Amino acid sequence: MLEKVLNAKSVAIIGASKIKTKRGYQAIKTLLAEGFEGEIYPVNPKEDKILGLKCYKDITEIEAPVDLALITTPARTIPDILRSCGKKKVAGAVIIAGGFRELGAKGKELEQQVITAAKETGVRIIGPNTSGMINMKSNLNLVGIQNAPKGNIALLCQSGNMALTLITEATIRKHEGFTYYVGVGNEADIKFHEYLKFFRNDPDTRCILIYVEGMSEGRKFLQEAHKTSIEKPIVLLKSGRSATGKKSAGSHTGSLAGRSEVAKLAYERAGIIVIENSDELFPVAETLSSQPAIKNNSLAILADGGGHATIAADLLSDYGIDLPELSEKTKEKLRAILPEAASVVNPVDVAGGTDSDPSLFADCAKIILKDPNVGGLLVVGLFGGYGIRFDKSLALGEEAAAHRLGSMVKKRQKPIFMHSLYGSYESHALDLLRHYNIPVHDSLDISCKCVASLCKYGNYLKSYHAITNFVFDWRAKAKAEGQQIIDNARKEGRSVLLEHEAKQLIKLHGAPTSVGQVTKTEDEAWQIAKKIKENVVLKIVSPDILHKSDACGVKLNLSSEKDIRKGFQQIIKSAKEYKQDADIMGVLVSPMAQKGLEIIIGTKTDEQFGPVIMYGLGGIMVEIMKDVTFWVLPVSQTSIKKMLGGTRSSVLLDGVRGHKGYDKKSLKKLISMCSELIESYPEIEEMDLNPVLLYEEGLDVVDARIILKQ
Amino acid sequence: MLEKVLNAKSVAIIGASKIKTKRGYQAIKTLLAEGFEGEIYPVNPKEDKILGLKCYKDITEIEAPVDLALITTPARTIPDILRSCGKKKVAGAVIIAGGFRELGAKGKELEQQVITAAKETGVRIIGPNTSGMINMKSNLNLVGIQNAPKGNIALLCQSGNMALTLITEATIRKHEGFTYYVGVGNEADIKFHEYLKFFRNDPDTRCILIYVEGMSEGRKFLQEAHKTSIEKPIVLLKSGRSATGKKSAGSHTGSLAGRSEVAKLAYERAGIIVIENSDELFPVAETLSSQPAIKNNSLAILADGGGHATIAADLLSDYGIDLPELSEKTKEKLRAILPEAASVVNPVDVAGGTDSDPSLFADCAKIILKDPNVGGLLVVGLFGGYGIRFDKSLALGEEAAAHRLGSMVKKRQKPIFMHSLYGSYESHALDLLRHYNIPVHDSLDISCKCVASLCKYGNYLKSYHAITNFVFDWRAKAKAEGQQIIDNARKEGRSVLLEHEAKQLIKLHGAPTSVGQVTKTEDEAWQIAKKIKENVVLKIVSPDILHKSDACGVKLNLSSEKDIRKGFQQIIKSAKEYKQDADIMGVLVSPMAQKGLEIIIGTKTDEQFGPVIMYGLGGIMVEIMKDVTFWVLPVSQTSIKKMLGGTRSSVLLDGVRGHKGYDKKSLKKLISMCSELIESYPEIEEMDLNPVLLYEEGLDVVDARIILKQ
Repeated sequence: MLEKVLNAKSVAIIGASKIKTKRGYQAIKTLLAEGFEGEIYPVNPKEDKILGLKCYKDITEIEAPVDLALITTPARTIPDILRSCGKKKVAGAVIIAGGFRELGAKGKELEQQVITAAKETGVRIIGPNTSGMINMKSNLNLVGIQNAPKGNIALLCQSGNMALTLITEATIRKHEGFTYYVGVGNEADIKFHEYLKFFRNDPDTRCILIYVEGMSEGRKFLQEAHKTSIEKPIVLLKSGRSATGKKSAGSHTGSLAGRSEVAKLAYERAGIIVIENSDELFPVAETLSSQPAIKNNSLAILADGGGHATIAADLLSDYGIDLPELSEKTKEKLRAILPEAASVVNPVDVAGGTDSDPSLFADCAKIILKDPNVGGLLVVGLFGGYGIRFDKSLALGEEAAAHRLGSMVKKRQKPIFMHSLYGSYESHALDLLRHYNIPVHDSLDISCKCVASLCKYGNYLKSYHAITNFVFDWRAKAKAEGQQIIDNARKEGRSVLLEHEAKQLIKLHGAPTSVGQVTKTEDEAWQIAKKIKENVVLKIVSPDILHKSDACGVKLNLSSEKDIRKGFQQIIKSAKEYKQDADIMGVLVSPMAQKGLEIIIGTKTDEQFGPVIMYGLGGIMVEIMKDVTFWVLPVSQTSIKKMLGGTRSSVLLDGVRGHKGYDKKSLKKLISMCSELIESYPEIEEMDLNPVLLYEEGLDVVDARIILKQ
Repeated sequence: MLEKVLNAKSVAIIGASKIKTKRGYQAIKTLLAEGFEGEIYPVNPKEDKILGLKCYKDITEIEAPVDLALITTPARTIPDILRSCGKKKVAGAVIIAGGFRELGAKGKELEQQVITAAKETGVRIIGPNTSGMINMKSNLNLVGIQNAPKGNIALLCQSGNMALTLITEATIRKHEGFTYYVGVGNEADIKFHEYLKFFRNDPDTRCILIYVEGMSEGRKFLQEAHKTSIEKPIVLLKSGRSATGKKSAGSHTGSLAGRSEVAKLAYERAGIIVIENSDELFPVAETLSSQPAIKNNSLAILADGGGHATIAADLLSDYGIDLPELSEKTKEKLRAILPEAASVVNPVDVAGGTDSDPSLFADCAKIILKDPNVGGLLVVGLFGGYGIRFDKSLALGEEAAAHRLGSMVKKRQKPIFMHSLYGSYESHALDLLRHYNIPVHDSLDISCKCVASLCKYGNYLKSYHAITNFVFDWRAKAKAEGQQIIDNARKEGRSVLLEHEAKQLIKLHGAPTSVGQVTKTEDEAWQIAKKIKENVVLKIVSPDILHKSDACGVKLNLSSEKDIRKGFQQIIKSAKEYKQDADIMGVLVSPMAQKGLEIIIGTKTDEQFGPVIMYGLGGIMVEIMKDVTFWVLPVSQTSIKKMLGGTRSSVLLDGVRGHKGYDKKSLKKLISMCSELIESYPEIEEMDLNPVLLYEEGLDVVDARIILKQ
């Protein structure tokens, strides 16, 4: 559907100009200079000709069909112009102007008018507030960045400066370039996921590079990303971390689930390679666009000296990549061609063996890559600089090695990475490696990150999530009785379910919890407690007191009549002191839970991705250690298994120090119930089950809180 | 003392050669090419003249005094040559040859011979196994890296490749260079700390850059580093992380205190800026060598577009740097010169305001740096590229701005950092900034790391540790009774103190702990328990059973005679089953401790830094969360305060969720006791107090273990 927009054969420049500093002039000049293969139609009611091209008064006057309009006029003119475009049956429009949503309420209104005009006319919109778009294949360059390198990476970017940065970097590196660049802008009409789908289907795009500050339809994006990443890699940098997690929220989950943690885990689940340092963004995309993924998460290092190998081993081990032992056969073969002082364990150190003949690098590489334990090879050190540093004649040996390394990657389908101190020097051998798509970097950090991303992508392709169906299909249904609990609260003007209500709701769906009974009198409290036959807990019930402990509204482990009566009185008294006008609905009497492992399960509605679930160690630890993990709902059984393994404390579940472990089966069932509950009642904004006490057998949801959407 | 060695006025090349590929030829050629200001004396019994210089049969034949000898001959020849050097009263020798300690036992023996020869003759040794040394000031270049840039950074490096990398990077960046380079090599004679002291006293050195894989006298190094870092910054990268922490150890502390964590915290305590990514090493050193430290940990960002500012804000916030609100006055002044769409909060976005006149950057910078909330300024975006990207004439405005920015840093003593997309292009404006020592980078990651290091250094200079006395002075004395406990164990051939012995020892020094009583009979166990009047714990006592729980050798919370007798029997039975020939010395009967917060305190002897202490949350958490911190012993009261604050769980001590907190005073006293204990008994290799139960008032050391040096 975006075909006609992004592969437009003709483009109208609305706001075309003769003034050299205007975008409406520069745009035409760039299209001419870059050699756009299609038709260019300047539109300006006041001009006849611009840069030698016939100028039209209005887009509707153009005789031939127009696929795309570039609109360079100010924000307020856009809705009318779009209607003209609609009349002309233009497929899409690129709106450069800012002054919309990003400026607040008034701009938002104008943006809404643009969206309405787009919907009415069927004109699809890139932007507004975008630097433009480029189709590198047809030289349809609507941005003004000239001489951008062509290649096989599609660039989807929410900042013009970052696009310029990435294109500049590609230009300097002189190797890989782009198929498309799209400045997503305000995403008013065409969304991230639509571009993504287009790039997935574009045969020339082999990797998709995304810079995102925030997206409006995260769930749809994840769907498309999941479909895409199994076909071609997606590399993404999400910025705006520092602004997150500051909003205070009504639940633990709300405050713990900083948007960026949720986003990172959600993106990774969809197979996206998430990057956090902007320096690594282009190199990783370049690597993924051309290199085979590493299948067994393992790598060998080949060095011509100590320091670099040590640093690389540190970094790779931080990334969790194996540096496997080489087989005896491999070691033997290496010993046969290297000096005695050489180290033939991984990392391999040639110990001067390449000083007189750098082509030995290729011999070593061949032997190492043949080893079945080894998934790829990182060469670190001076390769490419032997001819520069020692003797010119050595350059020829380096070139011979480069040719052989290049063909080796193809033959073995195992990647080679080259770290070279001389990466930014003129070196024909290094240029040859680049020609063979071998990633060459003078930074060990970046070389190792490229290795890590090929491992990560390889691991993903093998994982369950890559092969499974990844559909957010809601099947579970609300129960009438459950709906009534929610409706009741609404009727009373509350957007919070009280503890006993929340517990009733989850119990209805099968969660093990003792609801208890609410009472307004001390006498009745004692009567209820007597029947329970275990020690009891008293808790305040009030829609105005969310944090019961803060209001001294909880009394634990009571058994005698005296204690229960005293507890009741104290709770009521404290609650009144805590909040004078609090609506006190009574005191909840419930059995005291047995001690167990405290965990927390929560759900919230993420701005970008909709319902997400959080799981982790509970109690005081949840606040201090923040050892929690997030998942976009709904979750499958396999996802739940992954979730449980996604915390540092997961070893506790299996039992440590002689403890036999906890009932993971019940825990999985509970998480599954949460997933279903959230899909059954879309009114739920946030839910906290905290604590859930986990036992060797069974579990108990001790406290529950549900917040409804406002 | 190193003066004559590192500032040698004359150098003999022992192993001088006419063969061009030999180091003995290249060394002389380099000295001549680089224009060494002193005398060069080739030494080779077979030659008369090399490269036009008179060649001597033996170093003793040289008529004039010789300060330094460069020895290029093989390892086995070194001891004899050193004795010749001694006769000639040479101050120092650079030994290039490898083949010593790094090759195992035989090499170690040879290295010992070298050390002995050095001691006997008084010749100080650089290396062996070094790439050499350079004094950039006198062009005394004994390395063979030509055209290394001069400057004010002293480079101390334990890998020749890393030295080459850093010097190459400096060469490419064309700005800051070096005063000295020393390849530390095997550190057989001159140690890291001696070089450090020399550089501290060198007036031309303004920053010391260190790459270390492992050092032999860590404590002395920390002493010198502490003295140095208050005068000039030290930047250090420690590699070899991945090999650490794998050694299994006899105590928790042993296994938790991976060498690299200890090293990092120890270095930082001495004021060293520790770097983990090698890309950042040189840029940070360059920045610290020329820029004023940031005094208030705060920074403003000035941007000409969105993306870069957002990414920079993310990174700086990850580093814990404040992006303070600008004062109303500042905002007002900015509003007066910037377009309406500009953002005048921090980050400041000029919103196209600089498009027609980039000198506006300097106006903005002046206003922002005047703001007292702001400690420094990071400019991100396209500065330096306006003339390249838009119009040549704009370059002049950029140059004007560059001059003004340069003088602003001097005047305000607040640093400016420039991130420019055009950092690797030819840009006169950027060259001007470099001339004014303003760090220019095309990487946001590196720019932000430079900011972070100036903040870190500024914070350090203000901290207690910078101004305090930092002397490892041991004062505490052993007590006779304590020494007897240790001697007793030794007499019995044990290097482990049993629980009750360890507890006796710490109790002797004032730690609150109930030692309990050891008994061999069930009857006596019951008699002891009766007297205790609380529930008791029974624990197996055997030098062969270190992990008592693993052997089911612990019974908790017993009170009745029946249970105690049964417990006793079970413990003895389990112990025998666990280890048939275990030497069972009895069962320890002690009172059951009250519940409290479990913490762990441990000490161990670090290979590099000697005695270190670990503190953290105990129990199962210590293994799972690894929330522990390390400190080199002894510790002062202020250090202890910092230690306690150095864990994520420290908030627990102050009380959370209504808990009133724990007895920090007692805890501090206990840590102080540990520090004294370790200095009193140098025989102690490792000590574990685990768990220590901490209460609202007081604490209880529940289990203790002490391992003696073998």
